[in-house]
Amino acid sequence: MKIALLVAYDGTGFRGFARQRNTKVRTVQGVLEERLSHLLRRDVVTTGAGRTDAGVHAWGQVVSFEAPVAAEPEWVKTRLNRWLAPDVVVRAAVFAGESFDARFSARRRMYEYAVYEADVVNPFLERFAVHVSEKLDVRAMRWAARALIGEHDFASFCRSGEGSTTRRLRSVSFVRRDERLVIRVVADSFCQQMVRSIVGTLLEVGRGMRAATDIGRVLEARERAEAAPVAPAKGLRLVGVEYGTNPFRIASPTP
Amino acid sequence: MKIALLVAYDGTGFRGFARQRNTKVRTVQGVLEERLSHLLRRDVVTTGAGRTDAGVHAWGQVVSFEAPVAAEPEWVKTRLNRWLAPDVVVRAAVFAGESFDARFSARRRMYEYAVYEADVVNPFLERFAVHVSEKLDVRAMRWAARALIGEHDFASFCRSGEGSTTRRLRSVSFVRRDERLVIRVVADSFCQQMVRSIVGTLLEVGRGMRAATDIGRVLEARERAEAAPVAPAKGLRLVGVEYGTNPFRIASPTP
Repeated sequence: MKIALLVAYDGTGFRGFARQRNTKVRTVQGVLEERLSHLLRRDVVTTGAGRTDAGVHAWGQVVSFEAPVAAEPEWVKTRLNRWLAPDVVVRAAVFAGESFDARFSARRRMYEYAVYEADVVNPFLERFAVHVSEKLDVRAMRWAARALIGEHDFASFCRSGEGSTTRRLRSVSFVRRDERLVIRVVADSFCQQMVRSIVGTLLEVGRGMRAATDIGRVLEARERAEAAPVAPAKGLRLVGVEYGTNPFRIASPTP
Repeated sequence: MKIALLVAYDGTGFRGFARQRNTKVRTVQGVLEERLSHLLRRDVVTTGAGRTDAGVHAWGQVVSFEAPVAAEPEWVKTRLNRWLAPDVVVRAAVFAGESFDARFSARRRMYEYAVYEADVVNPFLERFAVHVSEKLDVRAMRWAARALIGEHDFASFCRSGEGSTTRRLRSVSFVRRDERLVIRVVADSFCQQMVRSIVGTLLEVGRGMRAATDIGRVLEARERAEAAPVAPAKGLRLVGVEYGTNPFRIASPTP
């Protein structure tokens, strides 16, 4: 039976989501597979919807695996949480159809990047958001982001050495939530470091270091060096993944 | 010249606010005095408005000390932040009148205690709030809290072995903020563990383990054993201190 897990994690203490075989490196997928294998008494191999980088968090990561028929999702959830919370939390666990695959069945991924504008650092926001000491020009950032919407070759915003860098970006929106400015980015899929490259570049626009009209030129250059350095990992969070049929019965409000 | 600092800190890594002489124990006052002494090239002794316990946080702690005339508050603030942020952050630094004392000039202290009601632990809230797996009966908690308002002997809610345990409690209010329920408690001053004892007892009321009417009896008993165990330190935050004249020119919105 296929089981799907809806997983939240604080990425601070992890070297990213993806397992790294034959190393002692702590990854989210690594601890999940280790605990699942222990629990189900067989080697469990999982698939994740998004391969988040070291230090990146998740609220709605989706992980699927093939389980023995005997394994009840609720029991798996309870046992995993007993071991892994609060760093990694299984928010929901359900049986999914045999053809379900957390990665290949996913239609869209939604990421959020949080920054906060303040005179000094705020100890209560620091862990999951990035401090910006000046006021950002959000209008200019919003304007700049429009050039990125649609299907493009995002080579300028992808870590080099990958295969195809053509992606379909659905939306970039800006929301004020509590004291944070949240930049929400939705795409069918992302290349590595894509959200952080986009956000890094948009932040340069917001700070007045780069013209809003510059973004189109960066995109067309297809040169990683044209975009800004990646924004820090800790501001980024995978908030949700969309499937043709949502395997979970719960909505995904973002905290 | 007297200098007053408005200080925020993440108490997770500290054994409380108060310095502990002749030990290696890390406290907020300890690191502040160590850095101030280094900066001003003389032994600096500080006074704090609230002696928060190990693991308790602050957004608006106030710290005062006598400084050489040469020390500019803004310079002190910048230098301290360079060393201590993001664990400890000086939000503002000003000259205060000679008679100002962060502790003895304080008229009121405001604390906030944060809990969140959810099926499973939330990795993004865990650091500064306490998880409650059931829905709390906030009406009953509000009703129960009314018995505590005014001047009373709070012996049932104070750590034993202290002197007078008579305090004047000004208000207990309940606010929903984001996904958290915030219990805000204001008093002229507090005895040790008072907020956490009150919150621990109110949470038992909210969970239906104790009748709302029971609180008056607990108060009158003047017996620590009558109240509930203290609520965990991490949910508590000193949010602000009130003086006859506010030495800082900035307001204290609570994050």
